[in-house]
Amino acid sequence: MIGTPIISVVGKSDSGKTTLLEKLIAELKKRGYRVGTVKHDTHGFEIDHPGKDSWRHAQAGSDVVVIASPNKLALIKKLETELKLDEVTSYITDVDIILTEGYKRADKPKIEVHRRAVGGDLLCSPEELLAVVTDEPLDVPVPQFSFDETEALVDLIEDRFLKKRDFPLVSVIVDGKGVPIFKDFTRRILAETVRGMVSALQGGSGRHIFIKLDLGERK
Amino acid sequence: MIGTPIISVVGKSDSGKTTLLEKLIAELKKRGYRVGTVKHDTHGFEIDHPGKDSWRHAQAGSDVVVIASPNKLALIKKLETELKLDEVTSYITDVDIILTEGYKRADKPKIEVHRRAVGGDLLCSPEELLAVVTDEPLDVPVPQFSFDETEALVDLIEDRFLKKRDFPLVSVIVDGKGVPIFKDFTRRILAETVRGMVSALQGGSGRHIFIKLDLGERK
Repeated sequence: MIGTPIISVVGKSDSGKTTLLEKLIAELKKRGYRVGTVKHDTHGFEIDHPGKDSWRHAQAGSDVVVIASPNKLALIKKLETELKLDEVTSYITDVDIILTEGYKRADKPKIEVHRRAVGGDLLCSPEELLAVVTDEPLDVPVPQFSFDETEALVDLIEDRFLKKRDFPLVSVIVDGKGVPIFKDFTRRILAETVRGMVSALQGGSGRHIFIKLDLGERK
Repeated sequence: MIGTPIISVVGKSDSGKTTLLEKLIAELKKRGYRVGTVKHDTHGFEIDHPGKDSWRHAQAGSDVVVIASPNKLALIKKLETELKLDEVTSYITDVDIILTEGYKRADKPKIEVHRRAVGGDLLCSPEELLAVVTDEPLDVPVPQFSFDETEALVDLIEDRFLKKRDFPLVSVIVDGKGVPIFKDFTRRILAETVRGMVSALQGGSGRHIFIKLDLGERK
């Protein structure tokens, strides 16, 4: 959801993005956070298993197939056009932070992974970078961490993005596109109006409210 | 989403639920509808492939893993408790109808599949049933179709659930649970208020509005 911090781990092939993500996920989980991750797959993938009931649904033409078991839910959705990162993350609810593998062109804070053996310049400019994880010192004005300094890197992430907050996060998505809300004032009016309506409706006050409107066909 | 028609295909093992679903999906797609399906898996399943980056994210502890490619999105979410059908379907957006395989205990209209060779009584009572698909005539007061009468069955579904509408569908989910809205008046007030706010915000008027609030920690 918009409002949940999103950090992208980027880097050249074989620089160790997945390995860094594994370490970050494990450390964030150890500290009690709920973590969502997004893998940007630029080629296309097959995930369901031929012959399974859910696979047969998709083959028959189902646009969205969900498999729901007592301990896991899987959703596979066909897309006509590639989703932007903010659209992808709108599918992720109930987490404290979202880490992505890839999405170097999206407008999110990034951690770039660099290895001497892979070489070359960094993919990202210093102003896009929250940090660099590298096995050699680099001459860039960005906090640098070795591959063993996961705890220090998660300290930085925690400081910057995971402090407790007492203000509402609000996301508004219209016809599949996020609507930016620039003013805190606007955000608070929206949040308080919706909260008030829902509170009147159910006679209580939840903390996570989720409203969908489908206004039907235009007359 | 709440408001999207949901129909459950139920029946004993080997009665042909998946086969009927394949036919229904294909016929609904032929008529231009967007279709979502849910497979109820009571045992648990493995879907991602060991060694893949997304699988490594999940192994490291990620609560929600998404794989996003240009033509497909997959989401795998760990659950602490099994979701109710309405919670499961809240993950499905942008479809005209949702068909489920299983969920015989959920409070949705059902199509029961019956085969003489499998035998026994029907699982559902007549008042729960929209139709029965059977290879022998049954003495129940419910519309009956043979396994070849997919078009007639989809005619019935279309008549009952897919006519054009000009009223808003509204769903409100608070802390993961759907809030029932019984009065059309309440639904319209909610819809019009939210629509008005969003219209003021973006200076336009979308048809599908989606708002999430996370009110932060209770003070």
